[in-house]
Amino acid sequence: MDDYLVFPWVCTPLHPRGGIIVTLKRAVIAVGGNAILDSSKRGTAEEQWKNVRHTAAQLIVLRDRYEMVITHGNGPQVGNILIRNEAGGHRVPEMPLDVCVAQSQGEIGFMLQNALINELKLMNEYKPVVTIITQVVVDSSDPAFDNPTKFIGPTYSTEKAIALTQKHGWVLKEYSSEKFRRVVPSPIPLKIPERHSIRKLMEDDMLVVAVGGGGIPIVEDTEAGGMYIGVEAVVDKDLASAVLATEIEAEALIMLTYVDAVALEFGTPQQKFIDTMTITQANTYMDQGHFPTGSMKPKIKAAIQFLENGGKTVIITSPDKILDALEGKAGTRVVADL
Amino acid sequence: MDDYLVFPWVCTPLHPRGGIIVTLKRAVIAVGGNAILDSSKRGTAEEQWKNVRHTAAQLIVLRDRYEMVITHGNGPQVGNILIRNEAGGHRVPEMPLDVCVAQSQGEIGFMLQNALINELKLMNEYKPVVTIITQVVVDSSDPAFDNPTKFIGPTYSTEKAIALTQKHGWVLKEYSSEKFRRVVPSPIPLKIPERHSIRKLMEDDMLVVAVGGGGIPIVEDTEAGGMYIGVEAVVDKDLASAVLATEIEAEALIMLTYVDAVALEFGTPQQKFIDTMTITQANTYMDQGHFPTGSMKPKIKAAIQFLENGGKTVIITSPDKILDALEGKAGTRVVADL
Repeated sequence: MDDYLVFPWVCTPLHPRGGIIVTLKRAVIAVGGNAILDSSKRGTAEEQWKNVRHTAAQLIVLRDRYEMVITHGNGPQVGNILIRNEAGGHRVPEMPLDVCVAQSQGEIGFMLQNALINELKLMNEYKPVVTIITQVVVDSSDPAFDNPTKFIGPTYSTEKAIALTQKHGWVLKEYSSEKFRRVVPSPIPLKIPERHSIRKLMEDDMLVVAVGGGGIPIVEDTEAGGMYIGVEAVVDKDLASAVLATEIEAEALIMLTYVDAVALEFGTPQQKFIDTMTITQANTYMDQGHFPTGSMKPKIKAAIQFLENGGKTVIITSPDKILDALEGKAGTRVVADL
Repeated sequence: MDDYLVFPWVCTPLHPRGGIIVTLKRAVIAVGGNAILDSSKRGTAEEQWKNVRHTAAQLIVLRDRYEMVITHGNGPQVGNILIRNEAGGHRVPEMPLDVCVAQSQGEIGFMLQNALINELKLMNEYKPVVTIITQVVVDSSDPAFDNPTKFIGPTYSTEKAIALTQKHGWVLKEYSSEKFRRVVPSPIPLKIPERHSIRKLMEDDMLVVAVGGGGIPIVEDTEAGGMYIGVEAVVDKDLASAVLATEIEAEALIMLTYVDAVALEFGTPQQKFIDTMTITQANTYMDQGHFPTGSMKPKIKAAIQFLENGGKTVIITSPDKILDALEGKAGTRVVADL
């Protein structure tokens, strides 16, 4: 064997931008539907692109801090898809709600992933960005199926509401005076079949968009070998995000919404923002009725569930305050009991 | 050091079903739109589920032979989405074609991934299945943008066609006697931004659905740092599949369609199926006009392109004949020149 020099190579992985790689914490970032489309707008593609690009610019600053998956709402988008579905019903078959949710995941996922890639391009960076079509398993005996409560789609007159009940078997409830809307079940999310793929992509330093609109609800048909069957329901995106966060062993669940922090006595002169609250405090405030059912309450429930399952950090803030909130200067932290 | 026995352990990775793991070849399986919805049908969700489940059962047999990504057409689905879009246009804003393609990827991806997972469940197997929302880069100076040729969406009367041209700036062409349809550009696919994610998931033994409808067409805006911008166009799914196959260094490109094999003099009494043809033969037959523009020609072009870029195996057959075709008993193989 020839003489040759063996160098004591030390392989230090280098970050593409020059520094040494640090192990990033893993986070689920749940983005409110208003970050994609302000519900006061009509919902043109241009309006959505504008909002999505703004949101992407705010989210991208987290790329050096977290392996991240971005989850998002779909209320306005699936609402519009349902209206188109109905309007075209005399020409082409209407699709069930689970398929409409899937369509909305494609729509919003494309926009978010496109906008995130473009933000990286603006900074001369490269990182793969990818949207995963995501299902969410719910229990077919969830009581929500006997008591649908989630308003969805357009409003109807009383006569039309009766006709739709007869035609589709839908449940409609009065939304405002003599205006009816369809209500669908909002069952508890149990698990996300795509969790392995989502985690794998994050571990490989890719930026993932998933769980759009809370996921496409499916039930396991126990009589047919556990086959996954789509159901007409919607799952709360914050609760589904908490399930994903636990499943992929995320350290942080960050929920972005239209307020900078959680408040007590919200919207009253006594309104008081909360910096930090424990699970016990959060439960107490929730019991006292501080958190509205349709907006803050599911976020608080998601926070508690994630922390009780081993999660470390929960932050609730607005997209504008993300960085301040990470430094403890803004937003609300929910923490395990001390 | 104590005496102890050192066993000559040989670590043989075991397949979950018991055999020794063999390194799988990588394949792109391109599935025709008719495998998802027979275009003679109205297109109800039930019809689509039935077809998708049938197709999934045929595709799943390949799981032990290939790391595979399934690509698919979206003609009937995006056609129906466009009809709903137009029908709802007086109530909610219409979405541009790129967003409609993204919606169709969500719809079909959900169905395929659900059906594939269920096929695995039926066999008591587990393997993650995942759909990737996929963009496809085209050249903004592709001549197709000056000469749109791909019919899309519903038919219109002459008067309506004129009105739509004025309203949207669409190009419409006569499709059948006094019936007009919109035509959109069908540019050449250049690259797929999501190729890294698709490959990574395949390497990790996941089954991937991607490049739905040929991908969501985007151009690079060279004046704005190469930003990706969605465009109203459609990309041929076989050509896009060939691009992906080259990018992920697949060994095989398998295109599934409604005929068992490629034929010369197709549909005539002289019809003759081809077992194997070289690139040169394929080019000759194509020049002789054997392959119709809208169906077989793009497949032959995709085959040639893939082989010229280093691909090894191209098979064109029907879903029913997949296994026979792999054994050389059915279908058509296209091979590099000898």
